[in-house]
Amino acid sequence: MVERSRAAPIGVTGEHTGQADPHKRTSDGRAPNALDRWLFRQMTSRLDSSRVRVVLWDEPAPSTTTDSLPVVVRIGDRKALRRVILHPNLYFGDLYSTGRITVHGDLVALLQAAYKYTAEKPSKLERLLRGRRIPTPDLADSRRNIHHHYDLGNDFYELWLDREALQYTCAYYADPAMTIEQAQQAKMHHVCRKMRLKAGETVAEAGSGWGGFAIFMAKNYGAKVRSFNISREQVAHAREWAKREGVANNVEFVEDDFRNIAGKYDVFVSIGMLEHAGAGNYRDLGKLIDRVLTPEGRGLIHSIGRDRPEPLNAWIDKRIFPGAYPPTLREMMDIFEPNGLSVLDVENIRLHYAETLRGWLERFEENVDTVREMFDETFVRAWRLYLVGSIAAFLSGKLQLFQVLYARTGARNVPWTRAHVYEHGD
Amino acid sequence: MVERSRAAPIGVTGEHTGQADPHKRTSDGRAPNALDRWLFRQMTSRLDSSRVRVVLWDEPAPSTTTDSLPVVVRIGDRKALRRVILHPNLYFGDLYSTGRITVHGDLVALLQAAYKYTAEKPSKLERLLRGRRIPTPDLADSRRNIHHHYDLGNDFYELWLDREALQYTCAYYADPAMTIEQAQQAKMHHVCRKMRLKAGETVAEAGSGWGGFAIFMAKNYGAKVRSFNISREQVAHAREWAKREGVANNVEFVEDDFRNIAGKYDVFVSIGMLEHAGAGNYRDLGKLIDRVLTPEGRGLIHSIGRDRPEPLNAWIDKRIFPGAYPPTLREMMDIFEPNGLSVLDVENIRLHYAETLRGWLERFEENVDTVREMFDETFVRAWRLYLVGSIAAFLSGKLQLFQVLYARTGARNVPWTRAHVYEHGD
Repeated sequence: MVERSRAAPIGVTGEHTGQADPHKRTSDGRAPNALDRWLFRQMTSRLDSSRVRVVLWDEPAPSTTTDSLPVVVRIGDRKALRRVILHPNLYFGDLYSTGRITVHGDLVALLQAAYKYTAEKPSKLERLLRGRRIPTPDLADSRRNIHHHYDLGNDFYELWLDREALQYTCAYYADPAMTIEQAQQAKMHHVCRKMRLKAGETVAEAGSGWGGFAIFMAKNYGAKVRSFNISREQVAHAREWAKREGVANNVEFVEDDFRNIAGKYDVFVSIGMLEHAGAGNYRDLGKLIDRVLTPEGRGLIHSIGRDRPEPLNAWIDKRIFPGAYPPTLREMMDIFEPNGLSVLDVENIRLHYAETLRGWLERFEENVDTVREMFDETFVRAWRLYLVGSIAAFLSGKLQLFQVLYARTGARNVPWTRAHVYEHGD
Repeated sequence: MVERSRAAPIGVTGEHTGQADPHKRTSDGRAPNALDRWLFRQMTSRLDSSRVRVVLWDEPAPSTTTDSLPVVVRIGDRKALRRVILHPNLYFGDLYSTGRITVHGDLVALLQAAYKYTAEKPSKLERLLRGRRIPTPDLADSRRNIHHHYDLGNDFYELWLDREALQYTCAYYADPAMTIEQAQQAKMHHVCRKMRLKAGETVAEAGSGWGGFAIFMAKNYGAKVRSFNISREQVAHAREWAKREGVANNVEFVEDDFRNIAGKYDVFVSIGMLEHAGAGNYRDLGKLIDRVLTPEGRGLIHSIGRDRPEPLNAWIDKRIFPGAYPPTLREMMDIFEPNGLSVLDVENIRLHYAETLRGWLERFEENVDTVREMFDETFVRAWRLYLVGSIAAFLSGKLQLFQVLYARTGARNVPWTRAHVYEHGD
């Protein structure tokens, strides 16, 4: 039985000594006034000071960047203080990215504490801001949102994703000692085994990424894949790649929204796309699956999710993934329940996503100078915060990772047990 | 990889030749009139006559009871015809039980066809009748409902349940060749492995049955179990049994509703109880789980379910399981989502329930003369219809069987993968 414990800190420190930081701010020469002090006390009164210490711009930044507690958060100027109090979920990210807030110590630990704190006791203002409508993107929204994130340049993602399949989704560490390359291969096998994908079967994929999984299914399982993606850069990359791998005849990449899919398929699979589909569109997604699936068809939806409904973090929504929404299992049932689909198997592998992100972050930091040259220091700090924040979110249970296997209601060709998924050496 | 196909008919015929049937009705000497004929055409116009043929009381019952198609359904008198048209879900059961409707041929095939037909095209009247409120039993309702079914006498259930653990819930045929005894042991191991039950851990069980699973956990996993049940007969049986097995010190059977549970437990488990709890009580059940679970606690809910919400079959509700309700996964989320619980794993093993029921039915028919002596022929026919109808419901996908593994949101001691569940010889 594979056991796993990662009690040790992941060792991500917010500030990296020896790196130039063009954004570092001082106090502008003005000391905090009485209102600043009062606001500061409001913000810090609920913090556990043995874990987190907040200082203002009249104190120097700590010189150490060790993992020891307390983590020190330094607020660099008055405007930063007022903004982070007004809407921490939104402004902390921007202020951290531009260096107006600096974090000295374990950033993962800080964010885990913050998640716990904000989840349990949101302020009235926070509740109000969180209560906004769940976004339901239409086709135009989706194109804009996807372009924002995925068309940053393939070169950028190649710096820190796994080198074999460029998977920008949760890996599966069947063995905890796996490299990220091995774990991404294991993830793709895991999904194909759950679906019992067989040679010659037709697959519709919603969301191709850079094409890694579509090519994997063709090469390793002999499937005929049609894969949909609205990111132009990714589709171009995927087509080239399929040619190089010699599977261009069996993998077609369609630069179109999956909602325009036609034809009949044995399998409908989607890895890491549902987060961008919008909860209001799930029912239509299920209708589409029902329409394109053969009578014995089945499939798998792999998505980031939640234990309870909550909008995406405001900063992530604004700067990283516009329009994204991680659904609860209850919300995901809109896909299946009204559309004659039967849920066969749900697996929650959230800790594997924390591990995947740790792998990405390591590579990112190894290549941080290249990233800084491609973009700038603000981008580096923003991306670091996004990766670290996501680690903290999966560790703390703020985010989940669901794989949902389904078939048509009443299907008789469903797997008898799940033992076949585990009867392999890798 | 274990594959399984049961395309062959299960071989249950509605009428058993050579058995005395004191309820057999004739036409009372009155031939069907014009209205009878018209009603008859309304009822049969949508039937596939190659599969099902319906005859009235002016035709003799077919002498064969083979599995060949079409299945012949004989309606024995005018009142029976009118009732089965008014509300087939409710009256078919009673009319079949009393022999006023007889079925000649494969009863499973008939009921599968009927389920498919009624699910896809319910009449307006049926829709109206199905639209009634989902029952939310209070404590008094629950006691009455449970007494109705489970206090029929332990002797009766011992005639046809597995002989080792008296499990009146879905078995797990890890190997399709298993006997029902083996499959029930495998089910209990499957649940304990999913929960990673360890020696010395405390378990709260909601719904004991005859005590088989509580005793199993104490004997095989060294757990300390407190098990709640409101069926007096079952509790008495369970206490005796625990003494005989020498685990009375580690298993306490409490004759009380699980809602009165107190204390702290490492595990909260419930097999086949949720169906009787009432969908309106799920939120409170989750609150209770949250209250009694240790910080590292976890558990499993095993329940009959649905792919889409629908009330229980009216006849089953009236004659067999008053107040029972099989929830959808969405409805089950009321347990977890509002109460800080995280779903780790859902497995749907509906085909195993069809197999379990087939095992029960075989034993039931082997002992049918004893059952007839205990009760009467109407009871025999009702129970047969219930077992056969349930086989058809699980085969056709009208019913599902969900095992839901959960822990607290953010728990770090959750299983890394599910491989440990499958790393055993049995």
